[in-house]
Amino acid sequence: MKVGVIGGGQLARMMIPAAVNLGIDLRVLAESEGMSAQMAVTGVGDYRNVDEVLRFCSDVDVVTFDHEHVPQAVLRALVDSGVAVHPGPDALQYAQDKILMREKLSDMGMPVPRWAAVSNSEELADFLAENGGVAVAKTARGGYDGKGVRVVRAAHEADDWFMALAEDANGGCLLVEELVEFRRELAQSVARRPSGETAVWPVVESIQRDGVCAEVIAPAPSSAGKLAQVAADVAIGISEGLGVTGVLAVELFETTDDRILVNELAMRPHNSGHWSIEGSTTSQFEQHLRAVLDLPLGATGCVAPWTVMVNVLGGPASGALADRYPAMLKGHVTAKVHNYGKAPRPGRKIGHVTVTGDDLDEVAYEARAAVAQLSD
Amino acid sequence: MKVGVIGGGQLARMMIPAAVNLGIDLRVLAESEGMSAQMAVTGVGDYRNVDEVLRFCSDVDVVTFDHEHVPQAVLRALVDSGVAVHPGPDALQYAQDKILMREKLSDMGMPVPRWAAVSNSEELADFLAENGGVAVAKTARGGYDGKGVRVVRAAHEADDWFMALAEDANGGCLLVEELVEFRRELAQSVARRPSGETAVWPVVESIQRDGVCAEVIAPAPSSAGKLAQVAADVAIGISEGLGVTGVLAVELFETTDDRILVNELAMRPHNSGHWSIEGSTTSQFEQHLRAVLDLPLGATGCVAPWTVMVNVLGGPASGALADRYPAMLKGHVTAKVHNYGKAPRPGRKIGHVTVTGDDLDEVAYEARAAVAQLSD
Repeated sequence: MKVGVIGGGQLARMMIPAAVNLGIDLRVLAESEGMSAQMAVTGVGDYRNVDEVLRFCSDVDVVTFDHEHVPQAVLRALVDSGVAVHPGPDALQYAQDKILMREKLSDMGMPVPRWAAVSNSEELADFLAENGGVAVAKTARGGYDGKGVRVVRAAHEADDWFMALAEDANGGCLLVEELVEFRRELAQSVARRPSGETAVWPVVESIQRDGVCAEVIAPAPSSAGKLAQVAADVAIGISEGLGVTGVLAVELFETTDDRILVNELAMRPHNSGHWSIEGSTTSQFEQHLRAVLDLPLGATGCVAPWTVMVNVLGGPASGALADRYPAMLKGHVTAKVHNYGKAPRPGRKIGHVTVTGDDLDEVAYEARAAVAQLSD
Repeated sequence: MKVGVIGGGQLARMMIPAAVNLGIDLRVLAESEGMSAQMAVTGVGDYRNVDEVLRFCSDVDVVTFDHEHVPQAVLRALVDSGVAVHPGPDALQYAQDKILMREKLSDMGMPVPRWAAVSNSEELADFLAENGGVAVAKTARGGYDGKGVRVVRAAHEADDWFMALAEDANGGCLLVEELVEFRRELAQSVARRPSGETAVWPVVESIQRDGVCAEVIAPAPSSAGKLAQVAADVAIGISEGLGVTGVLAVELFETTDDRILVNELAMRPHNSGHWSIEGSTTSQFEQHLRAVLDLPLGATGCVAPWTVMVNVLGGPASGALADRYPAMLKGHVTAKVHNYGKAPRPGRKIGHVTVTGDDLDEVAYEARAAVAQLSD
């Protein structure tokens, strides 16, 4: 069983333990030397170059991804050459273009914020006028971790993006959405096999800071019952409707008026699912590998009442993350550290800590305190 | 943090996930190409050759082991050259020579079976006469998984071993022990840091078939209280008395007259501790790496009331282990597979399956049924 992964970041890295356990030969095409998934890297190349990607894929059973940035032309060339690609280009286009995604979800009747595709500031002004004078503007392509997202209250506030679009040969529009009044953000992950089987994890709460995921609580507090069912139905519906294979993470808003709205999609293991490594019988990384290989999916229940995952954002001001281990590990014997092997840099995701247990307050305290010590 | 591992078997392989999580640069010196720990192999060489081992160790922070067969002369050359070796030669000698081990444990007042070192069949006859006409004879060096162990009822039954010893330039004796009447076999693992901290896991029950570990139940049923305390005290005492660093597994007999006797020692992660990957907050592989790096040790409690690990011995009669995944994984969604990447061969340990849960009968049934399907 040979699985090729395009992209050498921490998501590819965290597939390594699952691959080792299952006896999967994991092969990573990295962007450069010394990346997070270095141990599994078998090739270094440009994921935008058809020939380099085809060469990498010539000896694997299935290709999957660390990120969603592989161009459609490259993906389709792989499919045309007979490579099994999961998720495939037809699904990935919805993770690559937010306007396509909004159109598709709207067509499917999925709950989404009010939205429009606008190509100039006049159209943006109209949307603002219809939506109380405020909107969230997003570039359709290329955004992540809060980049390419902006709250606008006047049409001119997106002028730089419109100018960039005008200069872009592909042209295109901005996505604008209502500014959703939400109580909290949730995330629902699902895995789906090419042959159709799906499996959902419990819905989780995702706490963002500055547009970046900071913490995840699994399961989301007070989510049992209807909320969990709605979130699961939405994620399964999207995975089936878009033909996603592998793991799909659906970021959700729980609105102040008790609706669930779909925010973003990620067609790969996702930060909101890292808790599952320790917290679920089957981690998102194992499940992703099983799904893309079309193997039966594993149980997705929680192994403890509560799991809290806290990201290490930035890391220590000087020295390496591991320099902080002696003090941190001594004080936090239940903390499970995940070090992505990346150099500390302000705001950069360089690791995470997970704690599981019976008492949410204690578990959250331990995870936060451990991360604080790693960032000290 | 660079940890070198001498030996490329499944124990080195199972250190990989822990190393990936902690951001440890794991480097394995394998006996040959294509071994179980291949993904982490950075050198291939003979662990009996001082120069090859010194070369491998020139760029690591600490050296540890997949097995206990590295000769004392090589170990001492490493120490003399300034390499941090854990466990060190002074400790490892007791895992390499069973007579030395029995002498040392007896001197320490540890509970051991009646034993003697015998150099000829007359001495063996004397031991048999004093012990009801039956004894367990063991070669002092080189035995494992039931090899080098024989129940004898007449002195001539060990003649081949005495002849081999007579031809060996090093000479030496056989170890003979009383045939212990035991209720069951237990195993107690402990980790110890160079700076002295120790941490024990719960004592487990180990079920052997044909001298090979077949199953492990964690914790050992009906072990809470005094039994657990005695087992922990014995293991901690041995680790301190022998100066073991890293993981020490102590195989124990629970006798029919309610005594605990020390059977064998292993100074490395051990088959009886594989359950800890899913079943404990800190796996034996993570703890071993933390211990040899002299990092604070992690919590060792169980994450579920019961964990059962069942070895895949031999594997399928034809084809690869992974060929059995579709049927097995479909029927056993909670089974966690560990595939060592070794070709199936009668009796060979090529993997294991672990299941955790609340009901011991169910957990054991699932683990056994999953392994049966993998071996079909």
